[in-house]
Amino acid sequence: MGMTMTQKILAAHAGLDHVEAGQLIEAKLDVVMANDITGPMALPIFRQMADRVFDPDKVYLVPDHFTPNKDIKSAENSKAILDFSYDQHLTHVLEQGKCGVEHAILPERGYVTAGECIIGADSHTCTYGALGAFSTGVGTTDIATGMATGELWFKVPSAIRFKITGKPSPYVSGKDVILHIIHEIGVDGALYQSMEFTGDGIQYLTMDDRFTICNMAIEAGAKNGIFPVDEQTEAYLKEHCQKPHTVYTADADAVYDREIEVDLSKVRPMVAFPHLPGNGHTIDEVEQMDRIKIDQVVIGSCTNGRMSDLRKAASILKDQKVADHVRVMVVPATQKIFLQCIQEGLAEIFVKAGCAFNTPSCGPCMGGHMGVMAKGERCVSTTNRNFVGRMGDTESYIYLASPQTAAASAIAGYIANPETIGGAQK
Amino acid sequence: MGMTMTQKILAAHAGLDHVEAGQLIEAKLDVVMANDITGPMALPIFRQMADRVFDPDKVYLVPDHFTPNKDIKSAENSKAILDFSYDQHLTHVLEQGKCGVEHAILPERGYVTAGECIIGADSHTCTYGALGAFSTGVGTTDIATGMATGELWFKVPSAIRFKITGKPSPYVSGKDVILHIIHEIGVDGALYQSMEFTGDGIQYLTMDDRFTICNMAIEAGAKNGIFPVDEQTEAYLKEHCQKPHTVYTADADAVYDREIEVDLSKVRPMVAFPHLPGNGHTIDEVEQMDRIKIDQVVIGSCTNGRMSDLRKAASILKDQKVADHVRVMVVPATQKIFLQCIQEGLAEIFVKAGCAFNTPSCGPCMGGHMGVMAKGERCVSTTNRNFVGRMGDTESYIYLASPQTAAASAIAGYIANPETIGGAQK
Repeated sequence: MGMTMTQKILAAHAGLDHVEAGQLIEAKLDVVMANDITGPMALPIFRQMADRVFDPDKVYLVPDHFTPNKDIKSAENSKAILDFSYDQHLTHVLEQGKCGVEHAILPERGYVTAGECIIGADSHTCTYGALGAFSTGVGTTDIATGMATGELWFKVPSAIRFKITGKPSPYVSGKDVILHIIHEIGVDGALYQSMEFTGDGIQYLTMDDRFTICNMAIEAGAKNGIFPVDEQTEAYLKEHCQKPHTVYTADADAVYDREIEVDLSKVRPMVAFPHLPGNGHTIDEVEQMDRIKIDQVVIGSCTNGRMSDLRKAASILKDQKVADHVRVMVVPATQKIFLQCIQEGLAEIFVKAGCAFNTPSCGPCMGGHMGVMAKGERCVSTTNRNFVGRMGDTESYIYLASPQTAAASAIAGYIANPETIGGAQK
Repeated sequence: MGMTMTQKILAAHAGLDHVEAGQLIEAKLDVVMANDITGPMALPIFRQMADRVFDPDKVYLVPDHFTPNKDIKSAENSKAILDFSYDQHLTHVLEQGKCGVEHAILPERGYVTAGECIIGADSHTCTYGALGAFSTGVGTTDIATGMATGELWFKVPSAIRFKITGKPSPYVSGKDVILHIIHEIGVDGALYQSMEFTGDGIQYLTMDDRFTICNMAIEAGAKNGIFPVDEQTEAYLKEHCQKPHTVYTADADAVYDREIEVDLSKVRPMVAFPHLPGNGHTIDEVEQMDRIKIDQVVIGSCTNGRMSDLRKAASILKDQKVADHVRVMVVPATQKIFLQCIQEGLAEIFVKAGCAFNTPSCGPCMGGHMGVMAKGERCVSTTNRNFVGRMGDTESYIYLASPQTAAASAIAGYIANPETIGGAQK
């Protein structure tokens, strides 16, 4: 009985020829990551287990959630992981103001690559599946164990095979695809399963699209999301990563719990209404409703703060003005992306349009800082979760969408269709 | 007996031919300003007095201290002043992400001008004295009264005359001048007095220098700081302000409590040590001490977040790298300055050097957000106060300095002399 892509990676990292769904294994870890929320919680647990990390090349502590330091507690947390990084002589010390959001900075700097087994103390660690890696979010006890021993136990997941076909329209991106999928299968539609994306349609999904799609695998309850390694992946790794990588492909007779076909040509711009990512509506359905007036727009995050995301948003906002009453936070995911936005003229487009162009941070996504909502306010956001109170008051409302839809909505002042509103149409 | 510049403005606004120090008067107000901290506190008081503001042209509510919204409370406060601004049909509605720090945005947009009587519910409202206006900070009850009636009582201040002579060296700016003065006279050296700056040396002080100097008049306990209107002032107002203005000059026989001469050619780069702005040392004295290692640098604020400040900092940071262990927050004071930094290549210099380039906010200055310190940390900051706990933990330490000294220190990793460290020397 054949193995899925994920199972092959796990088998190799457990030193086994074969694993099957449900099996408990111990796997060696290539990358262990925590941030300024989870890192400081993991350190006391780590210290009960070890004096030194298992490998200073493979442990990464990223200050991004409450940085630049929001308050004294945030400052203490940032200091704790920075001091630890220096004390442990980590190869890669990440300092605030000089790095970015974890799930963007790790691929950008080539800290993660294809075929690896990666854990992060953050639920969106599943992002790196875009590179053909097994990557999943874990809790603080698990991350402390990983830091100390370089190994962790896993229950081998079964999988859903998503057969991607067709070519998306210019106003449909990875975010629309994953919101479409989660709407189809539900927020528990892939519970503890791998979401394996295959099919000839994936050639039309850029690496940034794939990062976005894998990033939100957890929003369907998945253990991980994963793409096969193709020419685009190889090109990305060649540009960003010095480490050697291994390509794992699913066996022809791999067993899947189910197969779901997604025709990209039929995916429409999607908006997930409060308070679940699965509560999706096509932009056509939204246009049939009464206008939904908004107070805030957030464009950024580990989901949609990459270069192509910001280019798409800028193409809509170019020579346009953000509506009165709407505040717009554009937050590039890393310092490198921030710099590139300056160099390509995107930063100028955003500021001229009336957006705040913020230094990289997870900030508004989890109501951390730099864009929190008051009671009754509504936001169109390119982030990944629209849970109750996620971005502020428990009576505030988040509508998840693509950078293009968010930008169009910023101009309109209500949830709007990027196909008909904004600079790209001129 | 003649009147000082300040007394002449107050007399005119009280409808009197003559006033003298100590006299209680009622003066008409040209501008009444509050922010997202003081505004929401003033609104309930205002509502006890009036339904409508005295003049929607003359009331300004600026969201800047905890914006982009730091948390739910900040979001509620921002919403309160925005809703009020719309409800009262204020001529100038200031929205977060589209304006900037109060004391930079009001002059930049020409909301304040020479000869005016201005109150703001923020102690650094004295900034606008640089334009030859009487401008002072007041409490929330007073600001509510001002919003309701357009008038306020004042005790006419006496004055100190600062006779400015000489020409400063290239590494001495307005910040060094005011830190020098406060070191000389002490933090209560001008208690409830006007600081009137005169003399042929003021020709060498740019408008930005003058804003910085007047901004910190309160740090010597002054009621206000004020410069005479000269060609530079007229040029600034022509560029920024549509409103007509009146020039008031001090009488030849005006009475001053004391006169202090400041020879700009002898002012050195200054650093005010914790925990008082008056605790100044010249950079030469600092260089004689053991190195003071730092963790953070802040370049920005209502004191030093203007274009010339950022140009000076960038000239030092160009092609340089911020030291490991040091996080640097560069915070342009307004969106217009932010945009200009992008267009002039400054933003690129800062980001390449390893600085966080933040969206305009008061943020770190008062430990609000976007750059708060943990216990034991040290910061060189271009802001105006280094009080205990101002920027975070009560055991953190702020060293006030100019943008040039802050930039040099960012590179060195310790408090450093801009005359010898940084790109400008190459």
